[in-house]
Amino acid sequence: MCQLLGMNCNTPTDIVFSFEGFRRRGGLTDHHADGFGIAFFEGAGARVFLDVEPSAQSQVADFIRDYPLKSENVIAHIRKATQGGVSLANTHPFQREMWGRYWVFAHNGNLDGFAPPEGRHYRPVGCTDSERAFCFLLDTLRQRFDHEPPFVELYRLVSETVAWIRSHGTFNFILSNGKFMLAHCSTSLYYIVRQAPFTTAHLVDEDVSVDFADLTTSNDRVAVIATQPLTDNEVWTPFEANELKIFKYGAPLKTAPGIGKVAPVPPSGA
Amino acid sequence: MCQLLGMNCNTPTDIVFSFEGFRRRGGLTDHHADGFGIAFFEGAGARVFLDVEPSAQSQVADFIRDYPLKSENVIAHIRKATQGGVSLANTHPFQREMWGRYWVFAHNGNLDGFAPPEGRHYRPVGCTDSERAFCFLLDTLRQRFDHEPPFVELYRLVSETVAWIRSHGTFNFILSNGKFMLAHCSTSLYYIVRQAPFTTAHLVDEDVSVDFADLTTSNDRVAVIATQPLTDNEVWTPFEANELKIFKYGAPLKTAPGIGKVAPVPPSGA
Repeated sequence: MCQLLGMNCNTPTDIVFSFEGFRRRGGLTDHHADGFGIAFFEGAGARVFLDVEPSAQSQVADFIRDYPLKSENVIAHIRKATQGGVSLANTHPFQREMWGRYWVFAHNGNLDGFAPPEGRHYRPVGCTDSERAFCFLLDTLRQRFDHEPPFVELYRLVSETVAWIRSHGTFNFILSNGKFMLAHCSTSLYYIVRQAPFTTAHLVDEDVSVDFADLTTSNDRVAVIATQPLTDNEVWTPFEANELKIFKYGAPLKTAPGIGKVAPVPPSGA
Repeated sequence: MCQLLGMNCNTPTDIVFSFEGFRRRGGLTDHHADGFGIAFFEGAGARVFLDVEPSAQSQVADFIRDYPLKSENVIAHIRKATQGGVSLANTHPFQREMWGRYWVFAHNGNLDGFAPPEGRHYRPVGCTDSERAFCFLLDTLRQRFDHEPPFVELYRLVSETVAWIRSHGTFNFILSNGKFMLAHCSTSLYYIVRQAPFTTAHLVDEDVSVDFADLTTSNDRVAVIATQPLTDNEVWTPFEANELKIFKYGAPLKTAPGIGKVAPVPPSGA
């Protein structure tokens, strides 16, 4: 199992505070020591930093701390290997291009016996269940839509495909294309929305506080999503089981009731 | 126009010495100040570091200098924007997955009026001629072959496709899938193979020397490819115009005479 961290904002924001607590779970306050990665969208572009070292000790993670990149969509992951050895090819987040945009994905959980048919457009490079699931999800979308569809159609097909994938096991994930962030919970995922009036937050994993009022303007809004709450003096909202939430401009969007609870659709040929 | 740097080795090697001279051309000894990027393959995995800052001043480039990653295939690029503004999405090298492997590409040159048909599998995210050419090349390969073909068939189709692309302008490029490196010259590309007995090399762009005998074993072999020679006391071999060379295990492979001089094949539908 692994740990997930996502950030979706209405203005480019650095993730230094959240990442500093999160990275300690990679070998220091928790045992997810099999590599880590973090992806930052900047417009349509994306930078993905990966390392096979534990995030608590990684020089790449030190660099992220010392070089506060600002982004509207960030996905980070620290790994406890279940399927697939410790290697760069098996390190999340994974990235692919679809419909002329980058898509970035990270997964927490374990999918048993998940062997989808070979993708027409997307195939895994490493040997994790997670990358298989990501490629299968994108391939399903890409086979149905030659160009990016209206969001409601996209959301519906993601929901159906995710319902089939999660029938194989635990499938907590965060996915972004730089425009919005989709987060799905099987067993454990929390979020918080920070907006004016900003207050002081204190990390769970390290005795560090920050007063967001010093760092923000009154228009800023930031949603942070994590496997477990990162702060101990704020109220984090747990996802429901099998809930697929969309975040845009730093807040969750409302979706039609029941749209996330559709019947699972198996892949053609499966 | 831009500058290219490639390294292909028979054992994982760091690129610190070559990169240190090369990066100075990004804003210090030359005027390629519109961003830079460097990709390292590690097995099937790849890490791509990108920055929109000039490489001579970039903190990402400082990190690369201070954290000597070892790799058998490295591609670096410093950018002087011709088509497409300065942005992360327009920064080389570009990366895509094909046949379950990552492919990384960087281009020097300018393609006029190059507007290939929309890809079935690969589409550009940014707005450079370079990424269009990369996507078109991969799409052509992927449409012909559902799985990775024997190398001679792959090489022939790359040659044909490249011949069509270069009819639009200058197309110096380096491409790798982590197993081999392909380098094509329109106007300017040089390479050197370093192997035992190793000697001392001195950079063109900075008064720095290194004695490779101190850093290597007698079995090591490293090919370095660059737009312009990086050292002033070694013999660099220029590519011929329109030459497409394959590097594997640190040396160029011999190809059948004339195989790179086939007729250009336009895309279907073009």
